[in-house]
Amino acid sequence: MKKFKEILIGKPLKSTNDESHLLTKLQALAMLSSDALSSIAYGPEQIIIVLVTVGSMATWYSLPLALIILVLLFALITSYTQVIHAYPSGGGAYLVSTENLGTIPGLISGGSLLVDYMLTVAVSTSSGADAITSAIPELYKYNLLIAIILALLLMLMNLRGLRESASFLMVPVYTFITTTFVLLAVGIFRIMSGSLPYHATAHVGTTVTGVSLILLLKAFSTGSSSLTGVEAISNAVPFFKRPKEHNASMTLVMMGSILAFFFAGVVFFAYWMGITPKPTVTVIAQMATGILGTGPVGHVVFFIFQFATALILAVAANTGYSAFPVLAFNMAKNKYMPHMFTARGDRLSFSNGIISLAAGAVVLLLIFNGQTDRLIPLYAIGVFTPFTLAQVGMVVHWRRHKEGNFWLHSIPNMIGAVISFSVVMILLLFRTGEIWPFFIVLPILIIGFIRIHSHYVNVAQQLRLREGEPEHKYKGNTVIVLVGNVTNVDFGAINYARSIGDYIIALHVSTNENTAKEQEIEHDFERAFPDLHLTVIRTSYRSIITPAVRYINLAAKNAKKHDYTTTVLIPTFIPSKPWQNMFHNQTGLRLRYYLNSHEDIILASYNYHLKR
Amino acid sequence: MKKFKEILIGKPLKSTNDESHLLTKLQALAMLSSDALSSIAYGPEQIIIVLVTVGSMATWYSLPLALIILVLLFALITSYTQVIHAYPSGGGAYLVSTENLGTIPGLISGGSLLVDYMLTVAVSTSSGADAITSAIPELYKYNLLIAIILALLLMLMNLRGLRESASFLMVPVYTFITTTFVLLAVGIFRIMSGSLPYHATAHVGTTVTGVSLILLLKAFSTGSSSLTGVEAISNAVPFFKRPKEHNASMTLVMMGSILAFFFAGVVFFAYWMGITPKPTVTVIAQMATGILGTGPVGHVVFFIFQFATALILAVAANTGYSAFPVLAFNMAKNKYMPHMFTARGDRLSFSNGIISLAAGAVVLLLIFNGQTDRLIPLYAIGVFTPFTLAQVGMVVHWRRHKEGNFWLHSIPNMIGAVISFSVVMILLLFRTGEIWPFFIVLPILIIGFIRIHSHYVNVAQQLRLREGEPEHKYKGNTVIVLVGNVTNVDFGAINYARSIGDYIIALHVSTNENTAKEQEIEHDFERAFPDLHLTVIRTSYRSIITPAVRYINLAAKNAKKHDYTTTVLIPTFIPSKPWQNMFHNQTGLRLRYYLNSHEDIILASYNYHLKR
Repeated sequence: MKKFKEILIGKPLKSTNDESHLLTKLQALAMLSSDALSSIAYGPEQIIIVLVTVGSMATWYSLPLALIILVLLFALITSYTQVIHAYPSGGGAYLVSTENLGTIPGLISGGSLLVDYMLTVAVSTSSGADAITSAIPELYKYNLLIAIILALLLMLMNLRGLRESASFLMVPVYTFITTTFVLLAVGIFRIMSGSLPYHATAHVGTTVTGVSLILLLKAFSTGSSSLTGVEAISNAVPFFKRPKEHNASMTLVMMGSILAFFFAGVVFFAYWMGITPKPTVTVIAQMATGILGTGPVGHVVFFIFQFATALILAVAANTGYSAFPVLAFNMAKNKYMPHMFTARGDRLSFSNGIISLAAGAVVLLLIFNGQTDRLIPLYAIGVFTPFTLAQVGMVVHWRRHKEGNFWLHSIPNMIGAVISFSVVMILLLFRTGEIWPFFIVLPILIIGFIRIHSHYVNVAQQLRLREGEPEHKYKGNTVIVLVGNVTNVDFGAINYARSIGDYIIALHVSTNENTAKEQEIEHDFERAFPDLHLTVIRTSYRSIITPAVRYINLAAKNAKKHDYTTTVLIPTFIPSKPWQNMFHNQTGLRLRYYLNSHEDIILASYNYHLKR
Repeated sequence: MKKFKEILIGKPLKSTNDESHLLTKLQALAMLSSDALSSIAYGPEQIIIVLVTVGSMATWYSLPLALIILVLLFALITSYTQVIHAYPSGGGAYLVSTENLGTIPGLISGGSLLVDYMLTVAVSTSSGADAITSAIPELYKYNLLIAIILALLLMLMNLRGLRESASFLMVPVYTFITTTFVLLAVGIFRIMSGSLPYHATAHVGTTVTGVSLILLLKAFSTGSSSLTGVEAISNAVPFFKRPKEHNASMTLVMMGSILAFFFAGVVFFAYWMGITPKPTVTVIAQMATGILGTGPVGHVVFFIFQFATALILAVAANTGYSAFPVLAFNMAKNKYMPHMFTARGDRLSFSNGIISLAAGAVVLLLIFNGQTDRLIPLYAIGVFTPFTLAQVGMVVHWRRHKEGNFWLHSIPNMIGAVISFSVVMILLLFRTGEIWPFFIVLPILIIGFIRIHSHYVNVAQQLRLREGEPEHKYKGNTVIVLVGNVTNVDFGAINYARSIGDYIIALHVSTNENTAKEQEIEHDFERAFPDLHLTVIRTSYRSIITPAVRYINLAAKNAKKHDYTTTVLIPTFIPSKPWQNMFHNQTGLRLRYYLNSHEDIILASYNYHLKR
């Protein structure tokens, strides 16, 4: 068992190995930016899909919409740079909202993000699977299975620990960044040299009938799904190499710049070449074909680009794996999530968080049958809710800490808050049919958080030792030994019981099938312990548990009356090989389970080890 | 948990309720004959399918083949009547082979039958599902799922206990028997009255080119699959009402007569009406349509008949559920299967056997994708191997026990043995491609049985108490208490430790994260127990398990040197509601798991019960 675990996730690591696990900027960019960058594979397309519902001439509106999204991106990047400096121990919407706005807004942020990270994994692995199966159509029927396998593979990688995953992820992320740069550079060169003709469906400014404010808002809200993932870096500051804050904010700016350039580039080329969505070929693939042409070199580059897109989509899911366990850890530290999320595994990763995330994502994949389109509105509401709260929180933060110019610091946060809030409102008003589950799950989560919190507070109160409590001195010890057949195990157990106990009860429970057997046991016992009495209970039930528990309880009450302790000693033998346990009845284990719920009984097991 | 279990399988029963659980002949027929009777739905068809491969004129050969199968049936029934009287406590091939031929033949019989019962369930539920989905074509895509659900439903019914299942099963079985009788009676009446014309493809005795001995043997071996299930009654004698042997053998004869009449009837009418297999309509359904005509009454009876066929096929799977757990129990009693198969559940059924059978059947359904045809040859080899051994065993039995005329008793068994062995040989020679997995699984099972046996013998030897072993008197007791934070739990645990121990070690393991916390604990401890020293171990690993185990081991060795016992006391608190356990770390449980493998350590847990 232990061996198997080591093969799967590697040998245990010392806590002091922490430092070397920290991330350089380039590693961090690979780890944390894939979610944001990969969204150019679907964000621009989603805008155009909404616009062309009133005719292909409307596509020029994608340019001003993209501009607004870039403004929002700029505001978010500025805002989160400030979060990194204000909360160097790992900020993120949960901490910022909690500290500045209070518990409930904090829990709303935290709950939204926990769900959102699951959606990140679900959306990215399912799009990743789509990309793979588009390349290899034979695999199409295994689409959902591939998404699930991707989610589980990422889980295993993350259980192995952060750094190794990061180096592993650098190849696909940088391949994607490089090929996209090459693609856009070639495109720009061809426009400048006049070899990529202007084919827009309509000039900028053309009046298109049917374009309404609602349509533009819908297009904007879907396109803004490209901005998910910006949060990730500010949550992961503690994982950066020193100087942590500087490196984290530099990485954030790098990521923002690359995303802005890619997003603007894709929208622009799609407009320039007059691309409209097709059911079988994605917008970004059409753009790549258009720019690269159909020559052999162009063809090879096209395939590399498509493959890198597929890979980065799969990798994007990893952002969730980095961020979810840290958020769960922060919430667990504040007693809003179970303690188990604070425990690090053998490889210093937060195993429970990683496993919960994978489980949640797999459930989402199964519920939505891996359909990316149905997941995206939920994804957007889940991320823009905490965005809004975090940025309102930052404004409050600047009001409280008057370090430097309030307006200089808070204007980016205010703009960010207003735009984020607008996205939330647009989603609420125009996509209610798709986002309603969010408003069922979130309150349930928040109630859960609050109840967990009050449970921990309650337990702590009950456990607190009163000052100056006097020691209790017992008058003696009752030890009840459960005797089955009279073997070496029972023999050793009774010797031990005599050493610790003042009053020994040897108890045998007999099912009424076989009185000969019962007499044999009584006889054997008398021979082995002539000075001890064997108490025999007969039961007409098949299970010895109920009568044994009833007798032990009575004995314990009696012992307590005389101020004696009660110890129940269960003799068990341990086979030489652990798997041999399946050949032996688990009565001891079951008895332990039932006795656990009874007070004033100490449960002890005497283990006899078999040699062969 | 307990509630849920009660709803699903009913309240626990006393062992003394046994008597009323026993079966009347009519109940037993319902319980144990469905496997045999339902086989007329596929057995005759399989014969005809093989014959028509050389032309439809060959179908007349089904008559002599059926005659041989009836002889075999008669021999088997006679033979098993003798088994019932010779082995009233539940005979069956396993016991008969073991007693008369030795261990290995017994294990071959037992292993074959265990696998065969799984095949019974798989074959019957999958044919049952076929019958259902043939009636409701919309469900066809859920075929495999329906088979699995049927297998699991039967599992639940059997976990509830025998008698209730039997009364539940009487309706479909007797509906099937009644409608089949009606069908054959109407057919006979119509032939007598001349209204069902003779349409045979060829008269009996017509020479048909292409008919070879191999063809006939193949047809015979497939048709003999109708005889599976005859074994069931002789295995279940203890479940009959008194006089058990008489009732069991009467039931066996009743079943044999009905099966013979039905089998002969189907083969005869198929020949008389010249029915040849069609891909979409079964032979038996064609026969029913032919006999009943197309009028409205005939139509209704036809539907009832088809529905009853579907139901009895599903019910046939239940034979496996009655027989498998009893066989597993018998083998476990002889120490060839794990002890857990001897344990009865709360409802007096052998729960582990029932669950294992369901699991095995579901795996078979998944492997063979619910395709009945691929399962049937395996099914036949699995049943005729123990048939042969059991009947050879009976011949040996009559040689040994000279009660009455040897030849009178043994001739049915000899004939049965020869025919059964022939079926095995035919399957071996002509269907090797389909039955090979049997010859891989069986040796593995037999090696497993033998290894399990030697494990139990080995354990029993090691546990046996030597005669006159002197008691061991320890000089004193070391108690190691694991202290986390200093709470009421630890306080109570130390009080208890002081009561049983002569030397107390209070042990705290500290991960090197938080020295302030560590000092606080040391301080609290000193205040609570001024006269006790707190031993603190610092570790650079995240987990406290490894250093704690290492320290405890050392302490235990030291204690042993001084002839002291070592008790490790783990203070734990029990939340007021069991599900709240998930909110608390399981360090104690994990420590217990690791310490279990170390000798000379008694593991005890001090439970502190929270009130709220």
